[in-house]
Amino acid sequence: MNEFSLIQKYFEQLTTQRDDVELGIGDDCALLIPLPNHAIAVSIDTLVEGIHFFADVAPENLGYKSLAVGLSDLAAMGAQPAWFTLALTLPEVNDTWLKKFSQGLAKLANEHNIQLVGGDTTEGPLTISIQVHGFVDQTKTMRRSNAKLGDMIYVSGTLGDAGAALQQKLQQLNDDKLNSDDIRYLQQRLEQPTAQIALGQQLLGLATSAIDISDGLLVDLEHILDRSNVGARLNLDNLPLSKALTKINHKVALALALHSGDDYELCFIVPPQHYAEIEKRFKGQVTRIGMITDDDGIYYIDDNDKLIELTGIGYEHFAN
Amino acid sequence: MNEFSLIQKYFEQLTTQRDDVELGIGDDCALLIPLPNHAIAVSIDTLVEGIHFFADVAPENLGYKSLAVGLSDLAAMGAQPAWFTLALTLPEVNDTWLKKFSQGLAKLANEHNIQLVGGDTTEGPLTISIQVHGFVDQTKTMRRSNAKLGDMIYVSGTLGDAGAALQQKLQQLNDDKLNSDDIRYLQQRLEQPTAQIALGQQLLGLATSAIDISDGLLVDLEHILDRSNVGARLNLDNLPLSKALTKINHKVALALALHSGDDYELCFIVPPQHYAEIEKRFKGQVTRIGMITDDDGIYYIDDNDKLIELTGIGYEHFAN
Repeated sequence: MNEFSLIQKYFEQLTTQRDDVELGIGDDCALLIPLPNHAIAVSIDTLVEGIHFFADVAPENLGYKSLAVGLSDLAAMGAQPAWFTLALTLPEVNDTWLKKFSQGLAKLANEHNIQLVGGDTTEGPLTISIQVHGFVDQTKTMRRSNAKLGDMIYVSGTLGDAGAALQQKLQQLNDDKLNSDDIRYLQQRLEQPTAQIALGQQLLGLATSAIDISDGLLVDLEHILDRSNVGARLNLDNLPLSKALTKINHKVALALALHSGDDYELCFIVPPQHYAEIEKRFKGQVTRIGMITDDDGIYYIDDNDKLIELTGIGYEHFAN
Repeated sequence: MNEFSLIQKYFEQLTTQRDDVELGIGDDCALLIPLPNHAIAVSIDTLVEGIHFFADVAPENLGYKSLAVGLSDLAAMGAQPAWFTLALTLPEVNDTWLKKFSQGLAKLANEHNIQLVGGDTTEGPLTISIQVHGFVDQTKTMRRSNAKLGDMIYVSGTLGDAGAALQQKLQQLNDDKLNSDDIRYLQQRLEQPTAQIALGQQLLGLATSAIDISDGLLVDLEHILDRSNVGARLNLDNLPLSKALTKINHKVALALALHSGDDYELCFIVPPQHYAEIEKRFKGQVTRIGMITDDDGIYYIDDNDKLIELTGIGYEHFAN
């Protein structure tokens, strides 16, 4: 497989051309000009067939999602997207597949003005690694270690949609009350997730920590709590659910919102002095779901006013 | 597989800690501070089991080589190594394997003061993608498109050693005249190649183009010729061979030097005004093997003073 020409043929001209790319695809390295007074945020993610996606996924959706996952990490840092690289391992060179995959990738890349600057294609089981690079103002960064007692916990959008789509696809969801629009909406949430790039940048200076929800609200929130040595108390009645998810069994919806990943919404932490501005500026776009405590773990208050620990409670506890 | 803790457990503390890493492993992104007035050189490479390495390779050598391949791309740009990321797909979590792999990786990383700043581990067939990042003075860069008529072509070190090691391992090499030291030397060249980092940086301002020889001298030199719209004439008598390679059949050695990859030496182009300095400063370390012409392709002059085109001539032509 001639990696050199494959990347050039399918990808070189496909994405936005930026002035800060001094040398793009086709040399030993790309040469990139950083933005003065900004840190460079980088993140690499791998998607493997059979683990992260089904073999029958539409290649344009796979291209789109492969980049969305990386953009979502930039969003969680409040970074401006700039460049990405693609390491693509393919079982065979399939012209139709490569065209569609690259088109899906390019569609999202161009929306966010992020340029493909290098890559490697090799032969093997289908595996996609994408590294994204963005710029962050060095004076205003969000870090997992910044959460403090008394801060409020917010999420963007709605939770559990991608998980519901996955269950629906696997015929594990009771979807009697969902119409075809609902199902299409859920599938879209799973296959073409939205990276919260604009929101991430707007949160700089207001939120102190952020994480993108890729593995599930509880698991991802715990990363913040662990790094910050704090706990959390959630109000389960406040978990934001889409119209589709309000139609299914409420306990299942709640379990999906807490446990299922792949939504790529942001979970972020806001200190007292910025509550008011967050509530005003992002009304309808973000939801306050709880607060930072000095507990060891994540808790909620049940219908009998009893404090129940969520950490360690699996999906089944809620869904059944 | 808990990717978060795997990367932290085996890799976080293993490599050199640099001051320009504002935030390393353990958040959504690493935050990196670029060197003022320098471009950032980036390159990503993937190694797949069964394609790029044997299943029985020692994990410490695999770790070493995975990074060496990337460092070699930085060398070809004359870049100073700074940071790298690791996307590791593993069939299982094997503690012994991960320890040895990470030790091999860290050994080379620390030699070159390059820090691991992020990664992703996923489940699947063994696949290693590493992206390297380095700094290049924006005023002095080497590019594949810079070769000009009358320039000289040089290579570092010796050629064909890794190819000979591969053939020896596959029992396709007549190695009757090689002693155990020779064979150990060749295996070392294949499994722990040296990235020419120091040489690459010293060539800035003297060489105008450079490439690392990963796919074979002819294939890699052609990348420079294609981008520069020029040809080349080689003096085959000048191809630098190791002591081990001078002991095997000379035609086979020549074929390996021209065609076999994985040596990770530099091939570089020097304009007339810098010949003298190159010959003086790098005596014994680099060899002049030919010159840039306006031919279409790569040629040599045979024993009958006839001009023969090398481009398109395969390994067998020389070896038999």
